[in-house]
Amino acid sequence: MTGSSVPPPVTAVMDAASAWLPARMAVVEERLGELAGGYGPKLGEEAEATLRAGGKRLRPILVLMAAGDGAGERAIRAATAVELLHMATLVHDDVLDGAPVRRGRPTVVARSGRERAVGVGDLLLSRAFAELADGGGDAEVAELSAASVALALGELAQRSDAYDTSITEERYLWRCSLKTARLFESACRVGRLASGGPGTEELAGFGREIGLAFQLLDDVLDVTGPPERTGKARGTDLLDGTVTLPLILARGLDPGLESVELRGLAPAEAEAICDRIAATDALDVVRARARAGIENAKEIISSRQFSDQERQLLGMIADGVVERYS
Amino acid sequence: MTGSSVPPPVTAVMDAASAWLPARMAVVEERLGELAGGYGPKLGEEAEATLRAGGKRLRPILVLMAAGDGAGERAIRAATAVELLHMATLVHDDVLDGAPVRRGRPTVVARSGRERAVGVGDLLLSRAFAELADGGGDAEVAELSAASVALALGELAQRSDAYDTSITEERYLWRCSLKTARLFESACRVGRLASGGPGTEELAGFGREIGLAFQLLDDVLDVTGPPERTGKARGTDLLDGTVTLPLILARGLDPGLESVELRGLAPAEAEAICDRIAATDALDVVRARARAGIENAKEIISSRQFSDQERQLLGMIADGVVERYS
Repeated sequence: MTGSSVPPPVTAVMDAASAWLPARMAVVEERLGELAGGYGPKLGEEAEATLRAGGKRLRPILVLMAAGDGAGERAIRAATAVELLHMATLVHDDVLDGAPVRRGRPTVVARSGRERAVGVGDLLLSRAFAELADGGGDAEVAELSAASVALALGELAQRSDAYDTSITEERYLWRCSLKTARLFESACRVGRLASGGPGTEELAGFGREIGLAFQLLDDVLDVTGPPERTGKARGTDLLDGTVTLPLILARGLDPGLESVELRGLAPAEAEAICDRIAATDALDVVRARARAGIENAKEIISSRQFSDQERQLLGMIADGVVERYS
Repeated sequence: MTGSSVPPPVTAVMDAASAWLPARMAVVEERLGELAGGYGPKLGEEAEATLRAGGKRLRPILVLMAAGDGAGERAIRAATAVELLHMATLVHDDVLDGAPVRRGRPTVVARSGRERAVGVGDLLLSRAFAELADGGGDAEVAELSAASVALALGELAQRSDAYDTSITEERYLWRCSLKTARLFESACRVGRLASGGPGTEELAGFGREIGLAFQLLDDVLDVTGPPERTGKARGTDLLDGTVTLPLILARGLDPGLESVELRGLAPAEAEAICDRIAATDALDVVRARARAGIENAKEIISSRQFSDQERQLLGMIADGVVERYS
């Protein structure tokens, strides 16, 4: 969790949490490094590059925060497994999308081909469950295998919807719940289960809300860029045929967008569509929705079963999701 | 387990086991069908086609046989999970190899593209752990997640070795142990763990031996065909750049094979290399090794901690691995 790749909100949370959170997060990082490097020099290189390629580590931090300052080995294992699962998904998603870069670096699929990328993803996914199994947490396996099913279904649904500009907002939100919100929800749930604290379902709801907000803002960022900040070209979603809420809403506001055909789009055309979406109020509406979700999330954890410090730290993470994109 | 796709050895075991094995295997089939069909019509179609595409169901049968005639819900879940894990691997392997057909039918990757194939594989893999988690078997999660790591490492090692004709027999055998033998071993181990019977490690050793024999004979079959029996072209491994024991041994027997270059091989050239391998004694040596492994496997379970029926049924499965290829 050191270095310039760590975004300010996470740093702020780390400072506010005093010693316990950074100390435990360091153990998670160490564990991830060991797992990545534990398969011989060649495999280790690719897996380690994947695990080290920056990233906000939002999900494992949520696990540890949900577990609280008494977080022990069980929570650390759950945090490690959640990040492994997330990384596996990223590696496979990049195969699906044929993505050349992520976070400004070449993806595994671009660097080493789809064969190795499929294998590296399978390895990370399998390792996630092996990590949980060593700790003997039945509830964690149940929760994260269900989340993993949701992730796969969400990705399949997104592929199935590709290039279909008629998909509804409801369908989009359902996809987001599978593809993004569920793992945030699970991160909170397994953290709390590991520590045995109260309010597990409230925390799960908190995670779901900020996960959804995170995805909404990610989809805004695909339209606005700039590439030097997002690490990928503007309109990457459009080029992949992925219809997101900004386009869905903008189509209702600018009739000229209704005839948009995403198949065979050139990068310059995708940018032009981004400009046209940005010229409507759609992005403001999506941002407002995300902010409302963040407020909802904070409301959910406002009850007295959460300590002042918990509310403060979780609130910072929630705000961080918005600030990152402001 | 009905229909003409079931190979004779399995049918014979089913008959010999009287009612309990077919009855429980029918539950596994039903469970697999439900899981495959449980994700909406479109996803169900592909996942179900994968699960129904014949297959010998050797691994779930091993789970049930290792559990014995008292096999209950826990063993049935383990058997289902093992088959889901195996199917996930097949779907992803076909992406890695760009395989057009398996068992004489188009693969998921050929039918629906690599995007869906990656997603369907992830779904099957995730569902395997979800199936185990519902039953609450810690030991099974530990065992099958380790097997899943081994499968991914084996596949990565095979890709990493691709087109390298200098790989050693030891390297090949290590790959086989990861890619094939480990899941047979795990199938036996989780079955026995589920029933609590004695001799778990002996059964694991039995599984390892027949798994390795299975892979050796599979590699012979790639050289000999015929395609109408194997469901794939002769020399498919060579075309994928996969160097197996028949070629490794044949290179020592026919100096002309030492200069073989696998990159850019045409199908007819691959068949010519197959003919040349078959002209040496290499295939007989590999077959003899496989048979010795089968005898080893039977020897391992000859102790009195296994009942007569267990030895008989397991012996039939072991012999079936050879007979299938005779």
